Amino acid sequence: MISAGIVGGTGYTGVELLRILANHPEVQVDCLTSRGAEGTAVAELFPSLRGQIDLTFAAPEVERLARCDVVFFATPHGVALDMAGALLDAGARVVDLSADFRLPDAALLARWYGLTPVNTELLGRAVYGLPEVNREALRTARLVANPGCYPTVIQLGFLPLLERGWIDPQRLIASAASGASGAGRGAKVDSLYCEVADNFRAYGVAGHRHLPEIETHLARATGHTVGLTFVPHLAPMNRGMHATLFAFLREAVDETELHALYAARYVDEPFVDVLPLGQHPATASVRAANTCRLSVFRPQNGETVVVLGVIDNLVKGAAGQAIQNMNLMFGLPESMGLEALAVMP
Amino acid sequence: MISAGIVGGTGYTGVELLRILANHPEVQVDCLTSRGAEGTAVAELFPSLRGQIDLTFAAPEVERLARCDVVFFATPHGVALDMAGALLDAGARVVDLSADFRLPDAALLARWYGLTPVNTELLGRAVYGLPEVNREALRTARLVANPGCYPTVIQLGFLPLLERGWIDPQRLIASAASGASGAGRGAKVDSLYCEVADNFRAYGVAGHRHLPEIETHLARATGHTVGLTFVPHLAPMNRGMHATLFAFLREAVDETELHALYAARYVDEPFVDVLPLGQHPATASVRAANTCRLSVFRPQNGETVVVLGVIDNLVKGAAGQAIQNMNLMFGLPESMGLEALAVMP
Amino acid sequence: MISAGIVGGTGYTGVELLRILANHPEVQVDCLTSRGAEGTAVAELFPSLRGQIDLTFAAPEVERLARCDVVFFATPHGVALDMAGALLDAGARVVDLSADFRLPDAALLARWYGLTPVNTELLGRAVYGLPEVNREALRTARLVANPGCYPTVIQLGFLPLLERGWIDPQRLIASAASGASGAGRGAKVDSLYCEVADNFRAYGVAGHRHLPEIETHLARATGHTVGLTFVPHLAPMNRGMHATLFAFLREAVDETELHALYAARYVDEPFVDVLPLGQHPATASVRAANTCRLSVFRPQNGETVVVLGVIDNLVKGAAGQAIQNMNLMFGLPESMGLEALAVMP
Amino acid sequence: MISAGIVGGTGYTGVELLRILANHPEVQVDCLTSRGAEGTAVAELFPSLRGQIDLTFAAPEVERLARCDVVFFATPHGVALDMAGALLDAGARVVDLSADFRLPDAALLARWYGLTPVNTELLGRAVYGLPEVNREALRTARLVANPGCYPTVIQLGFLPLLERGWIDPQRLIASAASGASGAGRGAKVDSLYCEVADNFRAYGVAGHRHLPEIETHLARATGHTVGLTFVPHLAPMNRGMHATLFAFLREAVDETELHALYAARYVDEPFVDVLPLGQHPATASVRAANTCRLSVFRPQNGETVVVLGVIDNLVKGAAGQAIQNMNLMFGLPESMGLEALAVMP
Repeated sequence: MISAGIVGGTGYTGVELLRILANHPEVQVDCLTSRGAEGTAVAELFPSLRGQIDLTFAAPEVERLARCDVVFFATPHGVALDMAGALLDAGARVVDLSADFRLPDAALLARWYGLTPVNTELLGRAVYGLPEVNREALRTARLVANPGCYPTVIQLGFLPLLERGWIDPQRLIASAASGASGAGRGAKVDSLYCEVADNFRAYGVAGHRHLPEIETHLARATGHTVGLTFVPHLAPMNRGMHATLFAFLREAVDETELHALYAARYVDEPFVDVLPLGQHPATASVRAANTCRLSVFRPQNGETVVVLGVIDNLVKGAAGQAIQNMNLMFGLPESMGLEALAVMP
Repeated sequence: MISAGIVGGTGYTGVELLRILANHPEVQVDCLTSRGAEGTAVAELFPSLRGQIDLTFAAPEVERLARCDVVFFATPHGVALDMAGALLDAGARVVDLSADFRLPDAALLARWYGLTPVNTELLGRAVYGLPEVNREALRTARLVANPGCYPTVIQLGFLPLLERGWIDPQRLIASAASGASGAGRGAKVDSLYCEVADNFRAYGVAGHRHLPEIETHLARATGHTVGLTFVPHLAPMNRGMHATLFAFLREAVDETELHALYAARYVDEPFVDVLPLGQHPATASVRAANTCRLSVFRPQNGETVVVLGVIDNLVKGAAGQAIQNMNLMFGLPESMGLEALAVMP
Repeated sequence: MISAGIVGGTGYTGVELLRILANHPEVQVDCLTSRGAEGTAVAELFPSLRGQIDLTFAAPEVERLARCDVVFFATPHGVALDMAGALLDAGARVVDLSADFRLPDAALLARWYGLTPVNTELLGRAVYGLPEVNREALRTARLVANPGCYPTVIQLGFLPLLERGWIDPQRLIASAASGASGAGRGAKVDSLYCEVADNFRAYGVAGHRHLPEIETHLARATGHTVGLTFVPHLAPMNRGMHATLFAFLREAVDETELHALYAARYVDEPFVDVLPLGQHPATASVRAANTCRLSVFRPQNGETVVVLGVIDNLVKGAAGQAIQNMNLMFGLPESMGLEALAVMP
Repeated sequence: MISAGIVGGTGYTGVELLRILANHPEVQVDCLTSRGAEGTAVAELFPSLRGQIDLTFAAPEVERLARCDVVFFATPHGVALDMAGALLDAGARVVDLSADFRLPDAALLARWYGLTPVNTELLGRAVYGLPEVNREALRTARLVANPGCYPTVIQLGFLPLLERGWIDPQRLIASAASGASGAGRGAKVDSLYCEVADNFRAYGVAGHRHLPEIETHLARATGHTVGLTFVPHLAPMNRGMHATLFAFLREAVDETELHALYAARYVDEPFVDVLPLGQHPATASVRAANTCRLSVFRPQNGETVVVLGVIDNLVKGAAGQAIQNMNLMFGLPESMGLEALAVMP
């Protein structure tokens, strides 16, 4: 049995880790910390866990967490950067769901997050947790930077085309929409029901923090320098993320070839599903599941290729992918604990 | 391995049975029928099941279904009434999620549903599938009438008080709200997104079909003749059912005694959770789970007792309870396949 | 032209007052105050008002407000209690949308709101702003206590039966649901989109502050001492309030007589609409309009009468009724500025 | 007083026309037709109109409609094509909210809609009802083709850049999302609450009928041949449409110049609002109003320009714009009857 700890378990990502791990046959959550909720029973904060999870939030002390085999960080940015080193030194493995280790370049981290790591060497040791790209490295990783939600679906959508070299890597466009849980459980006016419901809006068009993450890791994975225009939107839903990707073809490939490329690229992936030609993926088809579904189109046989992708931002976009990474790190079957089907409706 | 069949698998109850049974370790769905969708792959109709369930809808023929160990009916009213006898004769067990066998009295069935059973003897053989009342009978049942969603939560809410005799059984009031999946997947204007969203309304105040079911089975379970005023409402949500129950106390019991009564009544029930005094249950706390959560209040220490109850109408209110009943019928652990925690948010 | 001021214009009630008054032909909003938003242009906070309302939030100073003909308070409880006296002395009229003047009894105010008025004489001078009961008094009122949202629809629902004496006034039951705007625009976790959407729950069952308001004013209007059990719920919608009322008949009246009673009681009311027998009102049918729609049923010809009522909690339940009251106070046509039809869908 | 008729008044566009016209000081709706609802009172179908609109659906006979000064078509495609000629001959003016007259090229109409007009001359007489482009022609028009919802917001978004020649007209990209009312009030499974809520998906990527409309009229208005990739999405909301537009700059203009271009282009437009630099428009900010709000960005000072636009699909995207056009056709103030502010929340 793997002993797991969760730092920052009061947000939606934290409760989602608890929900999934509660039925994982090889993991037991032994330690759950939160600075603000210390002493509170988790079931008091989250009645959905009543009778299933008998834990109380503790203070986030390294000593206690270091006794775990694996520690998940579901914290605001900066916390893992401070604590991960000591935990790794003590022998624990770390899966960080925040952005602290996603950018291997300290200058980017400083520019986009205002973070200055004491120990930049750690940045280099982190393995970027996109199994569809880094599976082998993840098997031996001790520190995993779990990808952001937008970066997960956008990279899975662009990868086949970039790897194959069929599109102009400098003119990528991503228009994506996220459910409100992506904004977290903080008490902000912008996240109120009455501000989100029956409403749709873009945000962060001038520059969203997921942009450098996507550009960096697409470049690493494919060898191309990548230029991306990225517009995220907030949609009135609890969960779900939809990416609509546009790229310009450099080769005269037809829709059937495009589809074959995607089908072949992901044929062995347990959590990536390429839809039949002509179908459009819906976020509801992956609700509460660790699946990414993709479609590819070449409208009007023009020069533009359109890729559609959906994930559940809290699962494949956060907690589920973190557990997939943990499974790889500990030599467990990659899908263990992640077999639940999507909840529809 | 238990071989299961599902008749009428194209509605929300049918897809929910598939979702839950897909991960049930002792059941395999071998036969799925639908008159309208014959020949269609289930994953085509429900992309949420892609890659997990490799079945095609067949015509609903008794011969084929009779080879199953258990057949679930997720059909409009009247279908199970016609087919159940032959299946039982062939040795299959039947769990009927429609209303056909819920009313043991043929006259009530005719009055409220316009149904005239050819074989009224079958009505008498059906066991009403509320495990919290009929657990022992369910263990040997061959034909189970799975309760309606409103009747499940309303009976669980009133039972302790009626059994104990603390309230006037003739003046029960139930005001309850259901998510839109309760109305089914039929193409009706009243069920359109734009008719349901940002809206709340009552329906069926003059007389809802669940009224005689509740009165009949509360009377059977408690020995009291019961008089109930029942007002159902449609709430803008996919899943979830909330019951607000009112009754008049005949005894001077305080809130602590009321709470103790509920806690004791359900202490051994795997799927009924009594909240601490003062807490209000939320439907989201049971989303996609087989749990019923209850609270009891005596406002202002007056003569009125208020009981609040929540379930997921598709799980404890339909497919989950059907599987709980199947587990009992086949001597399996009652919670098998039903361990998934609530999905929040 | 009537010069109006609004104290506390940053909440949903404040912006609703602005929305409606912007098209009122006889009113001009000259002063808008907010302690927190001083110096901010209203259109910056509420882009929905861009180009239409050219006001900047000012500090809530009595001097400035006293120059207005009428001042609306859309403030947390306690503010109007402090400021209204000075404004009245200066000659302004006051419509208070908070609870400060709704309870004429200082003891109730202290018990339910923890408020101790310096000047209890003011409590007695306030006219309770339910035009369907107090129209004549409102024409000469200088201080109006605008009713709460739940009290508005619940009183309109019970009034005909109580006035006529057909029901037991001691055993009234109200189960009601409100859209999320009723909880205000404060940044609270409980009001987040992900806590409210696809969810339904009761709150305040032990005792909601609107309970004494309803009991007090029903008693005043009808001469009966009233006993009410009141359970409010939060529904996942922006606007809308639905009341489901239960009472026990003391007379053998049939449904047609009940309907005739309601139709006659409200025949001349511009904002109360009694539906034909058998129809159920939907909150969406009054969205953004000042209308209350009512239905009355006697299910199964039993002893229980069921009344259903809907309003938009921000309009007839707050800002619209306040403007209706203002029209009465200033001798304007009662419907002026309130003619907009419901927005559907 | 202008006498108006509405053909096809049972859908969301029809009821929206009624809602707005009910308070238009110079228009009276005298005739309302529907083949399916003949003989039904409009308030029976739409309780939101009770007490305000006292009309009964009639059969759609030309004779009766021809007595009106103006006839609005809110019908499925093909109906106006059949009836408009006779109405025009009889002296009525026609505003067609369907697609019948939007494409001046009969070949396009045949290809995208499968429609073959008997009288192609009529196609040429129709004025395309985008007042921001065709205001002068609309003043004397007798037959107006009211633009589609997507075409309205997408054209308003691209127009300034195309007119000025700052972008490559061959590589336009539009990713847009619509509320569910855009799919109409037909009883289709895809439009059910449980299929739309908590869900987001694209549709029609291979080719949506609004594509040729946008390309045709952008080309007419700007003199450029236009190449557009257009991906529409369905968002879980009643109303609202959001367009996210991408184009490639051919000139080195900075964000301030871009903003100045938009501000100048629309400075005199009563229903187009250009937001301050850096703000993102929200669909809720135009709910139930005839406004289009636009923003323009140049992210990272790259070669891509991003334009965001929002409208209410039923107002500026349908009924509101139709009334704006009618006002122009009859020499009324352009904003008459359209002054209502957005409903928020």
